[in-house]
Amino acid sequence: MSALSFTLLAACPKSGARRGRIRTPHAVIETPVFMPVGTQATVKTLSPDELIAIGAHIILSNTYHLHLRPGEDIVQEAGGLHKFMNWPRAVLTDSGGFQVFSLSPLRKISEEGVEFRSHISGEKRFLSPEKSIQVQNALGADIIMAFDECSPYPADREYVRLSLERTARWAKRSQSAHRRPDEQALFGIIQGGMDLDLRKQAALQLADMDFPGYAIGGLSVGEPKPLMHEVLAATTQWMPQDRPRYLMGVGAPDDLFEGVMRGVDMFDCVLPTRIARNGTVFTSRGKLVVRNAAYARDYGPLDENCACYVCKNYSRAYIRHLIKADETFGIRLTSYHNVAFLVKLMEDIRMSIENGTFLVLRKAFYNAYGYNDDTTSYPV
Amino acid sequence: MSALSFTLLAACPKSGARRGRIRTPHAVIETPVFMPVGTQATVKTLSPDELIAIGAHIILSNTYHLHLRPGEDIVQEAGGLHKFMNWPRAVLTDSGGFQVFSLSPLRKISEEGVEFRSHISGEKRFLSPEKSIQVQNALGADIIMAFDECSPYPADREYVRLSLERTARWAKRSQSAHRRPDEQALFGIIQGGMDLDLRKQAALQLADMDFPGYAIGGLSVGEPKPLMHEVLAATTQWMPQDRPRYLMGVGAPDDLFEGVMRGVDMFDCVLPTRIARNGTVFTSRGKLVVRNAAYARDYGPLDENCACYVCKNYSRAYIRHLIKADETFGIRLTSYHNVAFLVKLMEDIRMSIENGTFLVLRKAFYNAYGYNDDTTSYPV
Repeated sequence: MSALSFTLLAACPKSGARRGRIRTPHAVIETPVFMPVGTQATVKTLSPDELIAIGAHIILSNTYHLHLRPGEDIVQEAGGLHKFMNWPRAVLTDSGGFQVFSLSPLRKISEEGVEFRSHISGEKRFLSPEKSIQVQNALGADIIMAFDECSPYPADREYVRLSLERTARWAKRSQSAHRRPDEQALFGIIQGGMDLDLRKQAALQLADMDFPGYAIGGLSVGEPKPLMHEVLAATTQWMPQDRPRYLMGVGAPDDLFEGVMRGVDMFDCVLPTRIARNGTVFTSRGKLVVRNAAYARDYGPLDENCACYVCKNYSRAYIRHLIKADETFGIRLTSYHNVAFLVKLMEDIRMSIENGTFLVLRKAFYNAYGYNDDTTSYPV
Repeated sequence: MSALSFTLLAACPKSGARRGRIRTPHAVIETPVFMPVGTQATVKTLSPDELIAIGAHIILSNTYHLHLRPGEDIVQEAGGLHKFMNWPRAVLTDSGGFQVFSLSPLRKISEEGVEFRSHISGEKRFLSPEKSIQVQNALGADIIMAFDECSPYPADREYVRLSLERTARWAKRSQSAHRRPDEQALFGIIQGGMDLDLRKQAALQLADMDFPGYAIGGLSVGEPKPLMHEVLAATTQWMPQDRPRYLMGVGAPDDLFEGVMRGVDMFDCVLPTRIARNGTVFTSRGKLVVRNAAYARDYGPLDENCACYVCKNYSRAYIRHLIKADETFGIRLTSYHNVAFLVKLMEDIRMSIENGTFLVLRKAFYNAYGYNDDTTSYPV
């Protein structure tokens, strides 16, 4: 019995966009999908009930953070991540690899794994493929990730090649260490930096290992957008058609369109909740900094084309007041709207793929949003 | 036409406890009632929907804060406080008097009013009875308060006497300045420090002015609890039976019992949301600091005898994790529970008055909560 099934339902005839459905033990997930990020077993400021009202069916949580605090043993004793955080739908946990490289002040990489220092306590810790999978088995997410190394950008090609081969060996070890394949689907992660040959090599190597899904890591790490789009398009063409494809850590509105049209099914990003904390929101006419004085007497909704709870009930003036007054409820409202905005955008994208109007939607959205040509570099 | 009606429904035969019902333009309020505080037009961390789910029918907001930020003109342009903050039920605004005295670094009191410095911008501002009522008329709360001076504790008797007489003149001026008596009920505030004669004088003077309700100010300002109880009992006996009585700024569980048994109908306090932010919660067995290490592996609810949303869905271990990890959702959960705890306690108190078991409930609650004799000084 498999923990995950994936069905392709429709495809855009003029781009790589695909419409699919993932089934996991806790949810049926319509794809392409945006997954809100709940780093520390909570999507910042929001309740599970709100995420359900928004229409989220899967969220992401971070192995690195939960391993360090509160510890996977506590989550497991509580009955697993779903029960711990009162979230009945699907969860995906990353492997901790990315955080070990991006958050830990000191780290030592060996074939065995990575020694790092906790960004909380400073103490030495060790993560290996076996340890990461053991932690993820204890957390109990529907989808878990192989332990990988995310190459920095820019990086020496030889370093990326060696790192990639180690990541392939780590993927194999992750697979062998996985103890709950009937309940948790383990995805492999394709690295390879900005080198198209290495991306191809990684995609084919991992495809041989027959994972139920594949992620693309190491993008949106500082490279220019056209380069990211090029690497993404080159990578997805070597990925199995019949498995979900997950572009890690990417989720600005244009990234969603550009990823979808290159065949990506799953996205996650902290962007909607992060910019919300600064008083910035997505709207159909582009980003808006609602904390600006210009909105002090603006009694309209954050986005006049949005039907979310926030836009139905609160004005820019009220939300600005709350944020200026350092009131938590202000950030709740901007976070709710931003996550709802991306979830709704993906609903629109899914429907457009079904209707054969994906590229029409993309053009209309870009025009209204004010994106420039750099982000529309895909040949249409 | 009057903005407020008050009906007495039942009384405790063995104490001063009364069960009543207040009708305002936006709500029917069963009394005795605890009013959550939404200082800056938001009850900290909570949504209006959550307050409705909790069972709150009236909340308090602060004239001083809203006058300084965002300004009553913005609230008025937004359609008034109810619409501004999306709260369909009743609101009470205080007069700003208390905050002018407690928050402003410099202030100059004259017969005309009080010059003070904004605690936000530092700039000079002026509040008088006329200005306070004008601001409150613009905010549009169901119940508004006369502008008063809250005497400090301890205070010279002569100072308190002079202050009291000025407060009486200010009450008269507040009444004359009130432009919306059909939509907003203006309450008088009884001051008088800890002097029983002055409290009597104030109560009778204000009763002569025929306010639709009366508040007791200047208690819980640092005096010992037995003294507060004594002054409270002495004051309520001189207050009209047929008008709601509001004890300002008081709301610990024992304060609610002790106030109710001395004839108080309305309470407000920042305590439940303030202690929530430090990770402290009310339970039927006393206060509990859920952020303590002792609860790291405690998978039970905050209070096993509580049926609120938080206690039904989340464990102490999860809430402790959130608070330790500085996650806003943790404070949302402790705030929700604490407000729900006091609102439910008042429901229990109301039912006990109807059933003639108020003092039985009080004794049982005190025993379980662990209150000592100091708080049970009322002769029963």
